Amino acid sequence: MIAIKRFSSADADFKARLDALLAFEGAQDDTVDRTVAGILADVKTRGDAAVIDYTNRFDRLSVSSMGELELPASALQAALDGLPTAQRAALEAAAARVRSYHQRQPLQGWQYEEADGTLLGQKVTPLDRVGLYVPGGKAAYPSSVLMNAIPAHVAGVGELIMVVPTPGGEKNALVLAAAALAGVDRVFTIGGAQAVGALAYGTQTVPQVDKIVGPGNAYVAAAKRRVFGVVGIDMVAGPSEILVVCDGQTNPDWVAMDLFSQAEHDELAQSILVSPDAAFLDRVAEAIERLLPTMPRQAVIRAALENRGALIAVRDLDEACALANRIAPEHLELSIADAENWLPKIRHAGAIFIGRYTSESLGDYCAGPNHVLPTSGSARFSSPLGVYDFQKRSSLIRVSHAGAQTLGRIAATLAEGEGLTAHARSAEYRLD
Amino acid sequence: MIAIKRFSSADADFKARLDALLAFEGAQDDTVDRTVAGILADVKTRGDAAVIDYTNRFDRLSVSSMGELELPASALQAALDGLPTAQRAALEAAAARVRSYHQRQPLQGWQYEEADGTLLGQKVTPLDRVGLYVPGGKAAYPSSVLMNAIPAHVAGVGELIMVVPTPGGEKNALVLAAAALAGVDRVFTIGGAQAVGALAYGTQTVPQVDKIVGPGNAYVAAAKRRVFGVVGIDMVAGPSEILVVCDGQTNPDWVAMDLFSQAEHDELAQSILVSPDAAFLDRVAEAIERLLPTMPRQAVIRAALENRGALIAVRDLDEACALANRIAPEHLELSIADAENWLPKIRHAGAIFIGRYTSESLGDYCAGPNHVLPTSGSARFSSPLGVYDFQKRSSLIRVSHAGAQTLGRIAATLAEGEGLTAHARSAEYRLD
Repeated sequence: MIAIKRFSSADADFKARLDALLAFEGAQDDTVDRTVAGILADVKTRGDAAVIDYTNRFDRLSVSSMGELELPASALQAALDGLPTAQRAALEAAAARVRSYHQRQPLQGWQYEEADGTLLGQKVTPLDRVGLYVPGGKAAYPSSVLMNAIPAHVAGVGELIMVVPTPGGEKNALVLAAAALAGVDRVFTIGGAQAVGALAYGTQTVPQVDKIVGPGNAYVAAAKRRVFGVVGIDMVAGPSEILVVCDGQTNPDWVAMDLFSQAEHDELAQSILVSPDAAFLDRVAEAIERLLPTMPRQAVIRAALENRGALIAVRDLDEACALANRIAPEHLELSIADAENWLPKIRHAGAIFIGRYTSESLGDYCAGPNHVLPTSGSARFSSPLGVYDFQKRSSLIRVSHAGAQTLGRIAATLAEGEGLTAHARSAEYRLD
Repeated sequence: MIAIKRFSSADADFKARLDALLAFEGAQDDTVDRTVAGILADVKTRGDAAVIDYTNRFDRLSVSSMGELELPASALQAALDGLPTAQRAALEAAAARVRSYHQRQPLQGWQYEEADGTLLGQKVTPLDRVGLYVPGGKAAYPSSVLMNAIPAHVAGVGELIMVVPTPGGEKNALVLAAAALAGVDRVFTIGGAQAVGALAYGTQTVPQVDKIVGPGNAYVAAAKRRVFGVVGIDMVAGPSEILVVCDGQTNPDWVAMDLFSQAEHDELAQSILVSPDAAFLDRVAEAIERLLPTMPRQAVIRAALENRGALIAVRDLDEACALANRIAPEHLELSIADAENWLPKIRHAGAIFIGRYTSESLGDYCAGPNHVLPTSGSARFSSPLGVYDFQKRSSLIRVSHAGAQTLGRIAATLAEGEGLTAHARSAEYRLD
């Protein structure tokens, strides 16, 4: 028996149970944070030498120069050329679809002129150089390389530097193939806080970047948090989540497998099903029992479902949508008839999968939109990774001689009110 | 004599001098950080009671309920009604211009359908609730209230909660007037890490927000950094900066005063002038000497100019633009003939002030663009505060029955490559 939580919005303690289910705050471990602070300071001071030391220690290597920690372009191309045909075709098809979607995203600059000749606007430029962190080991996903690198390229980023640790020297051919396909410019086989430090501060060999994106373990997350400000970072991701809202008419096996597909990522991943049809929840519970033993990662799936999963009965689909907004899930499946009609009621979700045929896994790989999405309720205030994360805006202001007369008086009055005399005088100097 | 640094790009040690001039990293003080961690944990646990305790202690008050720490709408309106006519007119004119500019910024959603009926897109929604931190004391600027609140309103944010400490009970009428004008919904007279905690976690009285914006001292900055993830935050701002690029043809007094207008903010503010005309640098240095004694904040200006200011000679305007990109200043004045022509060469700056009549102070108050801008070189990767900071995107994916056949095969191949069997099976279930 799988002990997945079952409850209903009609329960007296529903709010408390829901709050407890959703409670998750990425622990900011003080020990990790202190270790990371030390590594970052050391990399900032000693550069390459520190990176080499930590890499030898943490990744069990024995290199003596940074040259041994950089992969040539030929190694990436060889990995791509070495893929089985079907895998290469799938990777190329996914890359093409992801590129096509993201080409709709670039921000455009604009400007307008006022009657007195004053011009206002916004200029958009790409970042010069971006660092892409790719984890080593079990969580190294070629799809993540595509999802991070392609938007940067579409934005027009000048140079893309990837870091990926190779513990014990082990390389992931699929990851390198994806890097070749996505047009990564340089790859260093380093990881952890030392790689984040190298990208943030630059070393003799690793160029300083303007922003670091990509997932990583607790050390990487703590390091990104610390260098935020010196460079930009994407969000610090929590465990993956799916919320399936179903009217009870989807094949229960499909829904069970969709719940599994989040749960298999991580024992802390969260899979929740919400339905107004309590009998359907029973059928999905039965499917979960029956299908779980067939899954290679059944231990992880079971742990995730028992830790953080739930099957929740609601009054109706309106209440289900309200619950979706409360949860603000990373992935939301609307597995219901005429699903588009419910879309206006959804305010907070990273990605919305509309209709019974849209399994979340299609979005993970090849539908086109990005699979880097806000977790832990942060869809309340943040967005999928996109081209816009690799562009920035500059305000444009050209005040005409005539405009300076009008604006100068307003500015001087407000500046005096704030006690900022130089601001006032600087505006007044431009008055005739 | 004011000891403002003078150097030239022709100097042998130019790069080292420039690096030293620009070196500034917001210290992450461990003592501050530990204090803040304690306050946040306490506010999270004890809610209102903790907020009351800290407010009494740090702001030297003796209130016993949160009711005493909330200002009614009538108090804001009274502050607005009490302003001198000229000040009120100036504030209203500024608010109108800021609103008009920001109304060009809202993001729009989009979607497109593929030949097989698959639909992809992006939905844009405003944040539900935003917290606006406003400092008490010397750095309390009504213009900042406008610059933070207006974009939130234009975005369609549902509720805007302002917090502003009143140390010793002292309120700033201009700040409250600006809050009334900008349509702030509720105002609590609390500050520091306790206010950040109240907004991030919610208390019995203070509603939990989705994002916290606005400047603050080291405790506020550390608290914002810590709650990032639970809520969104704007950037953690460093000291203000201006870079003036001048061809030598602007009135030296104007340029000196523009440099002062940053320097008067803060002893750590940075004012830099770059010109290919060395004789012009002399004239500005002379103007600085002559004008400084006339400034009420001359001690702050002197300290800032001597700490972090510089007059830099360059070979030509091309080199000046390259230097501007290296510095990525918060404010960049192009005080040169045909200034627009140089715009394509500028890649990194928070706001670009084009032409001799465009003093930076006009942008601070009323030109229209936001005055919350990326500092400390972060214009390399970030943007002015804008309407887009109060909106977020959700990806839309509706895969048709036909689309699921094509995409399912691609996804299944890639999922198998990553060892994620549930992902593969979930896609395969949708195959006919």
